[in-house]
Amino acid sequence: MSEDRTRSYWGWGYVEEHPDQERIDALRDRLETDFGFPALDLVDPPDLAAVDVPEPGLDSPGFDFCTQDRRSRVHHTYGDAYRDKVRGLRGNFGPAPDVVAEPGSEDEIADLLSWATDEHVAVVPYGGGTSVVGGVEGGAAGGEYAGVVSLDTRGMDDIVAVDEESRRARIQAGVLGPQIQDGLAEYGFQLRHYPQSYEFSTLGGWIATHAGGHFATDYTHIDDFVENARMVTPAGTVETRAVPRTAAGPKNNHFILGSEGTLGVITEAWMNVQPRPAGRSRATVHFADFEAAVAATREIAQARLSPANCRLLDSNEAAIFEVAEGDDHLLFLGFESLRESGSTRENLAEALSICGDYGGECPRGPIHGDRERDKPGPEDRWRTAFIEAPYLWDAFVRLGVIFDTFETAIPWSEFEAFHADIYEGVTDAMDDACGMGHLSCRFTHVYPDGPAPYYTFVAPAERGRELEQWRQIKETASDIIDDHGATITHHHAVGRVHQEHYARETADFRESLRAVKDAFDPAGIMNPGVLF
Amino acid sequence: MSEDRTRSYWGWGYVEEHPDQERIDALRDRLETDFGFPALDLVDPPDLAAVDVPEPGLDSPGFDFCTQDRRSRVHHTYGDAYRDKVRGLRGNFGPAPDVVAEPGSEDEIADLLSWATDEHVAVVPYGGGTSVVGGVEGGAAGGEYAGVVSLDTRGMDDIVAVDEESRRARIQAGVLGPQIQDGLAEYGFQLRHYPQSYEFSTLGGWIATHAGGHFATDYTHIDDFVENARMVTPAGTVETRAVPRTAAGPKNNHFILGSEGTLGVITEAWMNVQPRPAGRSRATVHFADFEAAVAATREIAQARLSPANCRLLDSNEAAIFEVAEGDDHLLFLGFESLRESGSTRENLAEALSICGDYGGECPRGPIHGDRERDKPGPEDRWRTAFIEAPYLWDAFVRLGVIFDTFETAIPWSEFEAFHADIYEGVTDAMDDACGMGHLSCRFTHVYPDGPAPYYTFVAPAERGRELEQWRQIKETASDIIDDHGATITHHHAVGRVHQEHYARETADFRESLRAVKDAFDPAGIMNPGVLF
Repeated sequence: MSEDRTRSYWGWGYVEEHPDQERIDALRDRLETDFGFPALDLVDPPDLAAVDVPEPGLDSPGFDFCTQDRRSRVHHTYGDAYRDKVRGLRGNFGPAPDVVAEPGSEDEIADLLSWATDEHVAVVPYGGGTSVVGGVEGGAAGGEYAGVVSLDTRGMDDIVAVDEESRRARIQAGVLGPQIQDGLAEYGFQLRHYPQSYEFSTLGGWIATHAGGHFATDYTHIDDFVENARMVTPAGTVETRAVPRTAAGPKNNHFILGSEGTLGVITEAWMNVQPRPAGRSRATVHFADFEAAVAATREIAQARLSPANCRLLDSNEAAIFEVAEGDDHLLFLGFESLRESGSTRENLAEALSICGDYGGECPRGPIHGDRERDKPGPEDRWRTAFIEAPYLWDAFVRLGVIFDTFETAIPWSEFEAFHADIYEGVTDAMDDACGMGHLSCRFTHVYPDGPAPYYTFVAPAERGRELEQWRQIKETASDIIDDHGATITHHHAVGRVHQEHYARETADFRESLRAVKDAFDPAGIMNPGVLF
Repeated sequence: MSEDRTRSYWGWGYVEEHPDQERIDALRDRLETDFGFPALDLVDPPDLAAVDVPEPGLDSPGFDFCTQDRRSRVHHTYGDAYRDKVRGLRGNFGPAPDVVAEPGSEDEIADLLSWATDEHVAVVPYGGGTSVVGGVEGGAAGGEYAGVVSLDTRGMDDIVAVDEESRRARIQAGVLGPQIQDGLAEYGFQLRHYPQSYEFSTLGGWIATHAGGHFATDYTHIDDFVENARMVTPAGTVETRAVPRTAAGPKNNHFILGSEGTLGVITEAWMNVQPRPAGRSRATVHFADFEAAVAATREIAQARLSPANCRLLDSNEAAIFEVAEGDDHLLFLGFESLRESGSTRENLAEALSICGDYGGECPRGPIHGDRERDKPGPEDRWRTAFIEAPYLWDAFVRLGVIFDTFETAIPWSEFEAFHADIYEGVTDAMDDACGMGHLSCRFTHVYPDGPAPYYTFVAPAERGRELEQWRQIKETASDIIDDHGATITHHHAVGRVHQEHYARETADFRESLRAVKDAFDPAGIMNPGVLF
């Protein structure tokens, strides 16, 4: 933990890492010039001392791990959704929790849940606070509850055990990505789960939301590394068997994975870990035609070559992220192997051969091993953009620009029609709401039966009306997803933002889901407003 | 469907395929001579006309897809568990269902479930009837119910749609393995899920029980091919979204997978399919030391070479299945690739190199492609034995020999101590119950974090006391599994045989599982005695 840097109270990451004036000017210039946006003016966030935070409406329980410190309450008000940033930038912290709890043990969590059940206080589990879907915002619980506690799990951040023989580690829920990396490094292991939020998000948050990570195939979600998990619920503490696989009834792990803090607080898990890859090969392929690029990507996914990276960017996506100029669509391919003698060269060659069949070209050729290029290429610029993006997102918001993403998964045979509807519908919605806008697409993950398309929309907002405009665009996208029978989220989770469409998507299962909720959380205090 | 052959009413498969007298004599001779069993005498199954079947205790509902035909009721009395065969051979069909329903549509299923709910009749979904854990035996429901209906899904056996672009097929639940193979062949696809019961078991049964299949890694269970599923429950018909992956809350597919007929009747699923592999490489490795063989197998699993086959047989297993003589432990390795240019040679070479590090030898060398050897080797004999085994099992029972298996999954670091306890405990239990016995082990599947060990026990029984003796041995094994925190089943499912240990294993989740049950099946009519 770098204590010489300050976490932003309204936006992403560290204040010191936010884009400087020069970077913001360049961004503004590009939006105004290249994208034809109207003149944009930059708004500074208010001082923390000046933001609007209501007094707590609830006395703190007697636990010494609870606080009503103003700064802490502000920090625990929102996640990192677009609507969170807008409200934060306005200095609106009305939904601040009444109490922030930072338990250091399961017993402390159990004590808190017991108190909250008795007092009918809503409890919102909070890991790194990086939810982009309103997953940690308790204020929305409203008047039904006596108050809201944000339960921060960061006090439970040990790597409890490493089982080298079985390549697994028992890790507490509050550990951040880089802490896992550091803690496992001394054993020569990695978790190799790298969501974009990696630096600031926790294992517990990942498990609670089916977080999506580094691998484009095979190991796409945190689920794929979870051997077992443990959760403290209002009805008691539960743990699944720590076994590689079981056929003993409906999988208990799936009562925990994706539960988004609505059933209990995830505290620990046995996670599969692995050594650092010894062999790597990568390449960037350019396509003039998007449909051809999609077909090549599909064939690679179906050839079961297991690429670690198989990220297709349409030309709009390449443009908005400053990855490449021109109209090319780009496919980033990466293969890795645990052994240097692994088949990454052969697999990449096979993938490039498939791309060639569809008119894809690889002007810069493949790279093998960890070698860097003398001159950065599109894939290097993408990596930089990917890391910078959450910071840049805040700059967009400060410039009065709507910037958000939505994502899904859909069978290959249904992608083309879906994609056309999305482009038409969302572009129209942006025109209607904002007079203009820019939409782009990439595939974050690919499966033999379909891709996980990920869309970014950018549009100039009218100050004060941003959320209304955003809602119109977001609603349009969500409706199209639902109309096509796709899923409202492939890896961002449900939170409060997707609640309505989630309920539609799982209509057949509402009653059984509710029954599970009632069994673990009879008083309904856990993260109300999410999933149920 | 071969209509010129007769399905056995008490044992496995076709009567015409059962071992002939010569084969049975050879088996008896081997048991008496090589294994030191006492003199064994062969019992013939009674004529179907002579078996004990009670009159139905319930009038058939008015549906024309229902029957009370005696033969059909006998056929639907049991699965293929050891205790089923013993009772069947004795001519004891006391637990026969009162009615057999063979609906041809979801509407008919819904009608039946509605009637059964009103009349409080237990409904036992029945696919191929190959359960080895008492999953389809409704008679155990006992006096609480007005009667028992066996609901046979074989009337729903269409491949409804094939989506070539997305490599998936929508298949009805009642389709048998070979029918799926034939139906997909015209599209150039396969499901490539080959449980030992393949010829006689159904897609719906596989999904209901987390069936384990062909692949030793990556795609070990039917779950790994399921995109979505559909189920008719007493509370209505439910279907999950047909998408490659979702992060929208707890996974709805996992309300269906492994539900063992206790929530509803699975009717259809979109399944991932694939072309026939174009490249194959295989080899058999001999180890003198079992621990070394386990270590080599572990390293191969952890190297993520993704072998399609990675089956370790200890020398006892090689002996009982007549695969090899001597004290060698055998590791069967197989790799396959969708492309001829795939890396099966390299991956096999890498695996053999790992084996070499642990003293493993490959005297017959690797085989690439579909080439057969001039002279069958251990892996060929294993394949033959694997297919013959269910038939041979019946011969053991007719000879008055207890023959059964149990299986689990456990982390690598815990395997050695567990395995030692199993060998000691189960051998003692056989000595105690039967005076002697033979125990053997193989790994059916392997994971980076642990193996799925599968044990076979064989002991001479006292006629009439078989089930009591069997229960003592089985109970010992199950207790050791539970004591070590392993799972009561890796792929055989729970059924009625594992119910008690399943309840222990899932103690933390009993209430939530029960809540799900109550939501889908409020009257508790679905397959009572299983899971709940």
